[in-house]
Amino acid sequence: MARHIYRCPLRWSDMDAFGHVNNVVFLRYLEEARVDFMFRPAPDGVTSSFTEGTVVARHEIDYVRPLVHRHEPVTVETWVTRIRSAAVTLSYEVKDYAAGEPAVEGGERPDVLYARASTVIVPYDLDAKRPRRLTADELAFLEGFLDGRDEGREKSRALVA
Amino acid sequence: MARHIYRCPLRWSDMDAFGHVNNVVFLRYLEEARVDFMFRPAPDGVTSSFTEGTVVARHEIDYVRPLVHRHEPVTVETWVTRIRSAAVTLSYEVKDYAAGEPAVEGGERPDVLYARASTVIVPYDLDAKRPRRLTADELAFLEGFLDGRDEGREKSRALVA
Amino acid sequence: MARHIYRCPLRWSDMDAFGHVNNVVFLRYLEEARVDFMFRPAPDGVTSSFTEGTVVARHEIDYVRPLVHRHEPVTVETWVTRIRSAAVTLSYEVKDYAAGEPAVEGGERPDVLYARASTVIVPYDLDAKRPRRLTADELAFLEGFLDGRDEGREKSRALVA
Amino acid sequence: MARHIYRCPLRWSDMDAFGHVNNVVFLRYLEEARVDFMFRPAPDGVTSSFTEGTVVARHEIDYVRPLVHRHEPVTVETWVTRIRSAAVTLSYEVKDYAAGEPAVEGGERPDVLYARASTVIVPYDLDAKRPRRLTADELAFLEGFLDGRDEGREKSRALVA
Repeated sequence: MARHIYRCPLRWSDMDAFGHVNNVVFLRYLEEARVDFMFRPAPDGVTSSFTEGTVVARHEIDYVRPLVHRHEPVTVETWVTRIRSAAVTLSYEVKDYAAGEPAVEGGERPDVLYARASTVIVPYDLDAKRPRRLTADELAFLEGFLDGRDEGREKSRALVA
Repeated sequence: MARHIYRCPLRWSDMDAFGHVNNVVFLRYLEEARVDFMFRPAPDGVTSSFTEGTVVARHEIDYVRPLVHRHEPVTVETWVTRIRSAAVTLSYEVKDYAAGEPAVEGGERPDVLYARASTVIVPYDLDAKRPRRLTADELAFLEGFLDGRDEGREKSRALVA
Repeated sequence: MARHIYRCPLRWSDMDAFGHVNNVVFLRYLEEARVDFMFRPAPDGVTSSFTEGTVVARHEIDYVRPLVHRHEPVTVETWVTRIRSAAVTLSYEVKDYAAGEPAVEGGERPDVLYARASTVIVPYDLDAKRPRRLTADELAFLEGFLDGRDEGREKSRALVA
Repeated sequence: MARHIYRCPLRWSDMDAFGHVNNVVFLRYLEEARVDFMFRPAPDGVTSSFTEGTVVARHEIDYVRPLVHRHEPVTVETWVTRIRSAAVTLSYEVKDYAAGEPAVEGGERPDVLYARASTVIVPYDLDAKRPRRLTADELAFLEGFLDGRDEGREKSRALVA
């Protein structure tokens, strides 16, 4: 299980009149993390099929702590929590690592968490204008980031079986 | 049970490179609908206690249909689905009325729905920097828009009892 | 000489951490005014040739007075100050009318002015990827809004002669 | 003469429905460059007097070439072109270095230029709500980035004399 780590730069204008990063802007950070996820670790074919062939079907986001503009990026961790034949759920944490670095495996991780969120992505055939199934390449890529804590992985296995 | 109706103007720049209103921008529409809800129907005291004394704790949003820029506003209906002593859940529908007008009560309402969403708002004491309870005035105002379809209303009664 | 009047709705999020409408957002208001100008008063052919066949080449903007979010729209007046064979200059004033209405001609006009700006628009052939000349229909439409205070109009006459 | 170099990250959402970075978003890039300029090279006292005590009075921007979203930041060079007792003009170039690096002095610099711009900043006393003069520290800092190509520097000398 891997998590995709994106160091998301803030903009001064992300703050609203209350002097905090506005709640809506967090969804922009998730968008940037998704774009990075689909471009950097993904193989080329998956990048193009994702970029041109998916739509956002749902977001959930819980705000944990206010975030104020600073020059250092904030970290967005992205991973996969559920794979269906025609839907993928990505989960995220928007946070700062305590020491500015990912904690060693098994070690304590006293991160400063700003938000937890998830997004349901639906593969979509833009020409035919209807949902499509995940391709085998997409499935293989997504499985590498799957951490469903039991249910996600099994169902995914069933899909490719 | 009343719903607050906000006619939300679109901006051309709300569209992204795919030529649709970007999914994140829908959260801006909800923000505008909330601001309008807290300013227009709310009595003055509630306006100020809400505006300066609440934070967004959570959003959920389901995207139903793509929306493209046009000069006519889109309708955001807002109502209350749950009241707790220190949290309120607002629900929304982003839509067009079939005939451009709210349907008569009891009549058919073939709305064109773009998104369904909900937001948890937490009353907050900005000076003391901690959550606070809803005031009696806030409760009275919110109850006028409560449509919890069973559970919401009962719990709210218990709060004011 | 006519001016195009656009009543531009503000959004709460247009304010930045200083509690004023952010200077960059004024350019969004100008964009909205331009979109409205190209859609509403313009004949259909001009709407489509403008919308799909122009690029912004230059902006100038002077900020006169801070603007704070309110529920009433702000007025953007747009008119044409210069016409060349392959460039049009639009000028704008972002303001509130003293009495909420345009002053009668010749009367006093104690407007509250927030910003003055201008934009150079270049007709562009998107297929051929190069600037193009204004069409006769575009010229005729733009001339109706021309107020160059001497030089603009003459040069425009020369173009169509 | 030094130029301040800011590597400005793009966001996917900076693109509009035409698939280019929207012209208004370039002003955001300039804002980010200014914030960086006022925080990084500036001494602490200047950072705070600038951040809390200036307003944007004017922008000019010329668009040279369309910019499309990519993962690499774009470079914004910022320098000072004019200093008055109560106004500073910053100039910018938004560009890519040919080789991804600043060219050596005197060498050829075949940059890819996207936009040229300038901003007039006015020092402002927020408490007294009126323009103020530049402080000696602000002047000293700004002079280090002055490249007025004749007139700017002389006038600045006169100010501190």
